[in-house]
Amino acid sequence: MLLESLKLYQERINQQLELRIDSLADIDPQLKAAMKHGALIGGKRIRPFLVYAIGDMLGVKLSTLDSCAAAIECVHAYSLIHDDLPAMDDDALRRGQPTVHIAFDEATAILAGDALQALAFEIISEPIENITPSQNLAMVRALANASGYSGMCGGQAMDLSATDKQIELATLIQLHKLKTGALIRCAVEFAIIAAKIEGQERQALLDFADAIGLAFQVQDDVLDIIASTEELGKPQGSDTDSNKSTYPKLLGLEGAQETASSLIEDALSALAKLPYNSQLIAEFARYIIERRV
Amino acid sequence: MLLESLKLYQERINQQLELRIDSLADIDPQLKAAMKHGALIGGKRIRPFLVYAIGDMLGVKLSTLDSCAAAIECVHAYSLIHDDLPAMDDDALRRGQPTVHIAFDEATAILAGDALQALAFEIISEPIENITPSQNLAMVRALANASGYSGMCGGQAMDLSATDKQIELATLIQLHKLKTGALIRCAVEFAIIAAKIEGQERQALLDFADAIGLAFQVQDDVLDIIASTEELGKPQGSDTDSNKSTYPKLLGLEGAQETASSLIEDALSALAKLPYNSQLIAEFARYIIERRV
Repeated sequence: MLLESLKLYQERINQQLELRIDSLADIDPQLKAAMKHGALIGGKRIRPFLVYAIGDMLGVKLSTLDSCAAAIECVHAYSLIHDDLPAMDDDALRRGQPTVHIAFDEATAILAGDALQALAFEIISEPIENITPSQNLAMVRALANASGYSGMCGGQAMDLSATDKQIELATLIQLHKLKTGALIRCAVEFAIIAAKIEGQERQALLDFADAIGLAFQVQDDVLDIIASTEELGKPQGSDTDSNKSTYPKLLGLEGAQETASSLIEDALSALAKLPYNSQLIAEFARYIIERRV
Repeated sequence: MLLESLKLYQERINQQLELRIDSLADIDPQLKAAMKHGALIGGKRIRPFLVYAIGDMLGVKLSTLDSCAAAIECVHAYSLIHDDLPAMDDDALRRGQPTVHIAFDEATAILAGDALQALAFEIISEPIENITPSQNLAMVRALANASGYSGMCGGQAMDLSATDKQIELATLIQLHKLKTGALIRCAVEFAIIAAKIEGQERQALLDFADAIGLAFQVQDDVLDIIASTEELGKPQGSDTDSNKSTYPKLLGLEGAQETASSLIEDALSALAKLPYNSQLIAEFARYIIERRV
């Protein structure tokens, strides 16, 4: 069931992003093409999946969730474009395809990232079916918080500062909570806001989001060591080479695997508190540590 | 009167930006310092001035306008940080001070720009005194439209495409309407939304904004030719050297000066249609073509 749902929502978000970008005026065809390249370069589409699957579990119509899914993926896509730049991670390939600054040029990649961030806020501030202006505004706020200094950008800065340095586990966790966790939490928050969920249920959903967000990153580090280059689409062990702090480095490979498993247990416990049919979401949580890519 | 008002609002916005950035948590001190450097490097603060002065003219309290002024200046500041990057204009100095990628490094400059864009949307989506969620949301939408592909980013991309190329006057106008005009229009729109102005008055204010936005750019091109290096704080004639299309190149120096004057006439006509005391704003419009820096 999970794989079909993942595929379904992947197709849905790809269609949404393509539609959104294609419908932009022909102001600068190269910038538009670069935005499209960056947004449609593929990927697991974890964040849109969470928006759709959790929103659906909470009884929200998929068409109401389209804007949320598209907005959050625009932010994720922009962050990848900028992370790949020569001054940052200097990556020429992503999922086997040339990164935006390789397919176009650096200036265009910077601008495409900037424009995708603005597009995210454009999308999430437009009127949405069944959503009040207050809900709309709460979504803007959640996305801005999750993607800025106190979220993704701050985490990315911590990550850059941590390169070639020994950092403590607490710092590594904080770094990932911001760098990748904040946006994953925001995906779940979008569903919560759309469904007007409050109190303990809201808290359980956010606990679930925090646990899988961190588990996802721990597992990424684990996979970077054990998976083959071919499976990942990037040189194997590239994080080790670049002297980045990782969970396996701080905890050992087995310790990191145990941490990921225990985080997924936490996520499943949080889910169990909810009065909804959370079978698909639970399957997804388990998939995070079972995946090979 | 104008110079005192300009100074007053400059001080007010600088204080606002400093307060906003200082109050960020100590997640990554270097990123925070880079954001502050970029936001407080100075400048005329034209956009905040327009928010405050036009909002005040329309009867909006200054404290209600603080968020609007801060949000729009965060977007402007981020765009300057990214424009100065080596892959873009490659500028080491701005107003006599080192640009962000020189004072820090390129990766930090990219992130500081990204985080300032997010901060803008954080600020403009927070509850504002006397502003309803619908007005708040309209402001988010105006800012997103003005700063993204269909606004500032698109204009900057057109500008990059136009380097080393002959472009027509209509293209140059479209480029500047997007690159600088959109955000100036947005500043006026913020005041319009805050004051709930509609219909013909709204249109007159937007016509005013469009005219001064373009005049400002034409005059910048003119100053680039006639002003001394010392006055500008950057090498004189740098646009000519880099083979950028400018109004003086297409219209001659005198033709460009006439165009700027005629745009200011349009702006003053639009103002004259309004039932408000627009003396300060009219003075500002004239200042645009009289300034030497």
